Amino acid sequence: MTDIFPFLAFAAADHVKLSLYFLLVFGTAKLMEEIFERLGQPGIVGQILAGVLLGPSILGWVESNEVLTALAELGVMFLLFRVGLEVKVSEMLKVGGTALLTAVLGVIVPFLAGWGLSVLWGRGTIESIFIGAAMVATSVGITAQVLAAKGLLQAEASRIILAAAVIDDVLGLLVLAVVSAMAEGNVNVGELAVTAGMAIGFTVLIAGFGTRAMSKVIPHARQRLSLAEGQFSVALCLLFGLALLATYAGVAAIIGAFLAGMALAESVEHRVHDLTNGVTELLVPFFLVGIGLHFQLSAFRDASTIVFAVVILVAAALSKLIGCGLGALRAGRANALRIGVGMIPRGEVGMVVAQIGRSLG
Amino acid sequence: MTDIFPFLAFAAADHVKLSLYFLLVFGTAKLMEEIFERLGQPGIVGQILAGVLLGPSILGWVESNEVLTALAELGVMFLLFRVGLEVKVSEMLKVGGTALLTAVLGVIVPFLAGWGLSVLWGRGTIESIFIGAAMVATSVGITAQVLAAKGLLQAEASRIILAAAVIDDVLGLLVLAVVSAMAEGNVNVGELAVTAGMAIGFTVLIAGFGTRAMSKVIPHARQRLSLAEGQFSVALCLLFGLALLATYAGVAAIIGAFLAGMALAESVEHRVHDLTNGVTELLVPFFLVGIGLHFQLSAFRDASTIVFAVVILVAAALSKLIGCGLGALRAGRANALRIGVGMIPRGEVGMVVAQIGRSLG
Repeated sequence: MTDIFPFLAFAAADHVKLSLYFLLVFGTAKLMEEIFERLGQPGIVGQILAGVLLGPSILGWVESNEVLTALAELGVMFLLFRVGLEVKVSEMLKVGGTALLTAVLGVIVPFLAGWGLSVLWGRGTIESIFIGAAMVATSVGITAQVLAAKGLLQAEASRIILAAAVIDDVLGLLVLAVVSAMAEGNVNVGELAVTAGMAIGFTVLIAGFGTRAMSKVIPHARQRLSLAEGQFSVALCLLFGLALLATYAGVAAIIGAFLAGMALAESVEHRVHDLTNGVTELLVPFFLVGIGLHFQLSAFRDASTIVFAVVILVAAALSKLIGCGLGALRAGRANALRIGVGMIPRGEVGMVVAQIGRSLG
Repeated sequence: MTDIFPFLAFAAADHVKLSLYFLLVFGTAKLMEEIFERLGQPGIVGQILAGVLLGPSILGWVESNEVLTALAELGVMFLLFRVGLEVKVSEMLKVGGTALLTAVLGVIVPFLAGWGLSVLWGRGTIESIFIGAAMVATSVGITAQVLAAKGLLQAEASRIILAAAVIDDVLGLLVLAVVSAMAEGNVNVGELAVTAGMAIGFTVLIAGFGTRAMSKVIPHARQRLSLAEGQFSVALCLLFGLALLATYAGVAAIIGAFLAGMALAESVEHRVHDLTNGVTELLVPFFLVGIGLHFQLSAFRDASTIVFAVVILVAAALSKLIGCGLGALRAGRANALRIGVGMIPRGEVGMVVAQIGRSLG
C-alpha cells in the first residue's frame, strides 16, 4: 500500500503522533494544574512540572521539537497579547516614572550581583561580565500568566510590573549588545546607538501612536470587512506584524505582541477577548510544558556545578527582587514588595543556568 | 555572543522566522478570503489559493514543513470538533438511513468510475483498483468549513452530509484494507473483519454512548474542577483522546474530533463554543493554506498527464455527486443535489492527483 501511496502512511503515522503529542502535553499540564490548584499551590508551577515529568529527566515520553517550540512561541505571544488587551496605554503612562526606575535598578543590581559572584568564584573578567548579563534577562511570560490567572491585571502593582518588563527587555538588549561588543574588544558607539535607537524608537512609537491608529482602523474593520470575525483577523495580523517588527528592532517578539494588544485595548469588541482566550487556553500549556522540558537533571552531575547553579539561581531571584523593589519604593512598601516578587520569574533563567552548568561541567 | 550562549541566536532567528511565517500564512489567507467574499466568491477558495500563491508553484515564499503540518492538523481537528459541537446525536440518527445509503453509493460509484476509466486508459488491473480506491477517499474538512461559515449546520441536508461523511470514512478505510490485501495477493478475511469491527465499533460506541457519558461528566467538571476554564480543558482532552483512539481504530483523527464535539454538544456551556471558535479562527487558515501549498504545477509537465489528471478530477467529482445524490434521493430532489455537491470537495484529491501525476510523469 504505502509504496504506491507513500503519503497515506506518512499521514496516518503523523496523525497518531500528533494526537498523542497534543493529548500528553495538554492533558498532563491541565492535570498537574488541577492538582496544584487543589493543594493551594500555583497552577503554573504544576504545568511547568508537567514538562519536567514528561521530559528527558524523568519519563522521557516527550521531546522538545520544532512543533512544540512553535506552539509554545505562539502561546506566549497570545498570552502577552491577551494581557495587552486588558491594559490601557494611558494607565501605563501614569506609572511610567516608577516603572522606569524599577526596570533600571532591576537591570543594574542583578548585573552587579552576577558579575561580583562570578569574580569571587574565580572566573575570568569576560565570563563574569557575561554571567552578569545573563542575570539581567527577564521573561514576562510567567508573571503575565500569574497576573491574568489571578485577575490582578488592573492592580497598580501589575501595571508597574508590565511597564517595567517592557523597559527591562529594551535595557536587557542594550546590556547584551554592550557586553558582546566588549567581548569582541570592539565597542562601536555608533552601532550601539543605532541598536538602542531602534529598540527604544519601536517601543515608544507603538506605545505612543498605536492606540490612536487602531481607534481609527478598528471601527472601519467592523463596518467594511466581509470576514466573519473581521476584527479578530485584523487583530491577529497586527499581533504577528508587530511581533515580527519587534524582532527586527531587536526586542522580543512577545513585547511586540504585548504592544499590539495594548494598541487594540480601547477599540476592539469583547468578542476579540473571548476568541483570544480560546487560543491562550489551548496554547499556554505548551509554553509552560516547554519550559519544563528544558530542565535537564543530567546537567547537574557534580556537586560544585550544583552549588554554583543554586547560588546563581538564588542570586538572580534576590538581586531582581532587591533592585526592582528599591526602584518601586515610591509606590509604597507593600507594592514595592509585590513588584519585586513579580519581576523575579524568568522562563529563561532555567535555560541560562543549564547552559552555565553545561559549559562548566 | 552566540558561541557562548548558542540558544540566544537560535531563539532570535527562530522568533523572526516564526512571526514572519505566521504573518505570511494567516495574513495572506485572510486577505484572499476578504477579496473573494467581496467578489461574491467562496472565501475558502481564496484561502486555498493563498496557499497556491505562497507555495512553490508561484511565489515560493512558504514551504510546507512540520510546523505547518501540525498547525493544519490541529486546525482541521478543531474545525470538525466545532462542527460536532453544533450537531446532536439524536438529529444525526434521524437521518441515519439516508446517510448510510448516501455513503455506500458514494463509495461504490466513484470506485467503479475510477477503476473503469483506468482500465479504459490501458492501465493494469491492480493499478486500476488502486485508482478506484483513491477516488473513494472523502475529506469532510472543506465541506464542514463551508457549512459552518454559511451557518447551514442545522439544515437537514447538512446533517445527512455530516453523517454520510463519517460513514464514508469508515467505508473508505475498509476499501483501502481490502484493496491493499488484494495487492499483496493475500486476502485474510479474519484480519479484514477485525479492521472493520474496530472502525465500526469505535464509531458506533462513541456516537451511541458518548453523549450520555458526557452529560454525566460535564456537570461534575463544572462544579468540582478548580481550573479557570475547566469545561474547555476537559473538552480538549476528550478531543485529543478521541482523535488518538480514532487513529488507532483506523479511522481519521478528524472523525474522532467530530465525535468528541458531538458527544459534548448537549452538555457544555456556550463559553466552550466561543473559545473553540477562537482556535478555529486562528488555525483553519493554516489548514486551507496547507492544502494550497501541496499544489505543484511541476507535476503536470506533459499534456497526457494533464489530461489524465483532469479526467480523474472530473470523474472524482461527478461520480461522488451521482453516487451520493442517488443515495440521498429519498430526502427530496433539491436536497439530494445539495448533498451530492456537499460530498464532492476533498482536500486529499489534489494530493492523490498530484501523486498519480508524479508516478506517471
